[in-house]
Amino acid sequence: MDESPQQTVQGLGSLPFYVGGTQVLGLACVVITGVWMGSYHGGYAWDGTQQEFNVHPLCMVLGMVFLYGDAILVYRVFRNESKRNVKILHAVLHFLALIISIVGIVAVFDYHNHEKIPNMYSLHSWCGMLTFLLFCIQWLMGLGFFLFPGTLTSMRSWYLPLHVFFGLAMLAMSLATCLLGISEKLFFAIQATYSQFVPEGILGNVLGMLLIAFGILIGYIVTREDFRRPPHPEEEALSVHFKTLTEGGSPSSP
Amino acid sequence: MDESPQQTVQGLGSLPFYVGGTQVLGLACVVITGVWMGSYHGGYAWDGTQQEFNVHPLCMVLGMVFLYGDAILVYRVFRNESKRNVKILHAVLHFLALIISIVGIVAVFDYHNHEKIPNMYSLHSWCGMLTFLLFCIQWLMGLGFFLFPGTLTSMRSWYLPLHVFFGLAMLAMSLATCLLGISEKLFFAIQATYSQFVPEGILGNVLGMLLIAFGILIGYIVTREDFRRPPHPEEEALSVHFKTLTEGGSPSSP
Repeated sequence: MDESPQQTVQGLGSLPFYVGGTQVLGLACVVITGVWMGSYHGGYAWDGTQQEFNVHPLCMVLGMVFLYGDAILVYRVFRNESKRNVKILHAVLHFLALIISIVGIVAVFDYHNHEKIPNMYSLHSWCGMLTFLLFCIQWLMGLGFFLFPGTLTSMRSWYLPLHVFFGLAMLAMSLATCLLGISEKLFFAIQATYSQFVPEGILGNVLGMLLIAFGILIGYIVTREDFRRPPHPEEEALSVHFKTLTEGGSPSSP
Repeated sequence: MDESPQQTVQGLGSLPFYVGGTQVLGLACVVITGVWMGSYHGGYAWDGTQQEFNVHPLCMVLGMVFLYGDAILVYRVFRNESKRNVKILHAVLHFLALIISIVGIVAVFDYHNHEKIPNMYSLHSWCGMLTFLLFCIQWLMGLGFFLFPGTLTSMRSWYLPLHVFFGLAMLAMSLATCLLGISEKLFFAIQATYSQFVPEGILGNVLGMLLIAFGILIGYIVTREDFRRPPHPEEEALSVHFKTLTEGGSPSSP
């Protein structure tokens, strides 16, 4: 890396604003989902009814969007902390996302079974299950490759670009699944009046737009070159190897 | 760039298979959309009826997915052709995508107006219009920054990473809009039987999965380091500038 301190400062000055933007958007998505299910569909319970279903969207937006996005961002936010600690934080946030998503998935299966509604027939459910299964595989592989101390550096270097690419691809899939879920919910709940621009329809659409904005902002922060984590002495071995592998210059941090 | 010929050959050997995969998936998506609207919904016409609506999904998948994806791929497929010619091909493919998309959008507005169905109320329409407007802006900016001969190299270098990022982000948004469209169409057409795994429902869901696979494969090819276009003498000035800007090593080609 031959960056000058001036370049670093110039680029990094805007990072907090972008990160702040993701947090505002992400929290807005969680709050709007919570209020939507709370105000328009009777709140929350765990009794097999519509109120148990309501747990599903809230958990999925909190887990597979907000926490998932924040887990990705930790490498940009904690640029100068120990790599090991940031890795652990990344894994913990993804673990929280995993647990909360499992609660959300159990809620919808439980509701369907209680109401005798078939499971896994819609495009939303297919996309969601594919995303969730890939997420589980990615989480386990991340654990094995990056946190298990015995993994060879060469194996880590081989897997790192795949982990980064599929991490972002899965965020996109997760967001697309949320959009499908919003659309499906609106067609179930207000199909007769959706075309008349009723408040619930507009609320759902606005939530969809905010989710897209969240995804674009996270993607922008993570892929912008001058926001990348600078190399630290502890990562030097991996850095050198990865640099050679990818033709001179790709940073070694996800 | 300090890549060895061996590394280049190793990485590039698989490129034709990945590109072939995108073409199989992309064509499958176009054909399945065409057959779905043709076989289940009465074929095509331009008379304000359901048959005019059927033009919409076919044009959008052909324009905003298949041609859009291929326009992105030209920089990887024609790695050693003149940059100027590849740029023109990129612009022409995107222009075709734009024209076909406009036909598709006119078809659905025309159908809605003929059938007295309100426009622009659904999440699908909001996502689609946002994607289309961003696509128009990006196409015009691409023309101004990269094909207009008077544009300064420093301005091109500033815009290039934004153009590349938003190009991929818009492909993701375009695919998400298609998924929303499939889901919406299935709820309009077969809501009563969708949960019984009827053939049309499965066909729509499979189309959604293929669209996701297409997007992931395009994204993978475009972001994989060793598939990037090598620097050519005519691009040297831009290359050097961009390299300095992004801290030593990012290739200058989109």
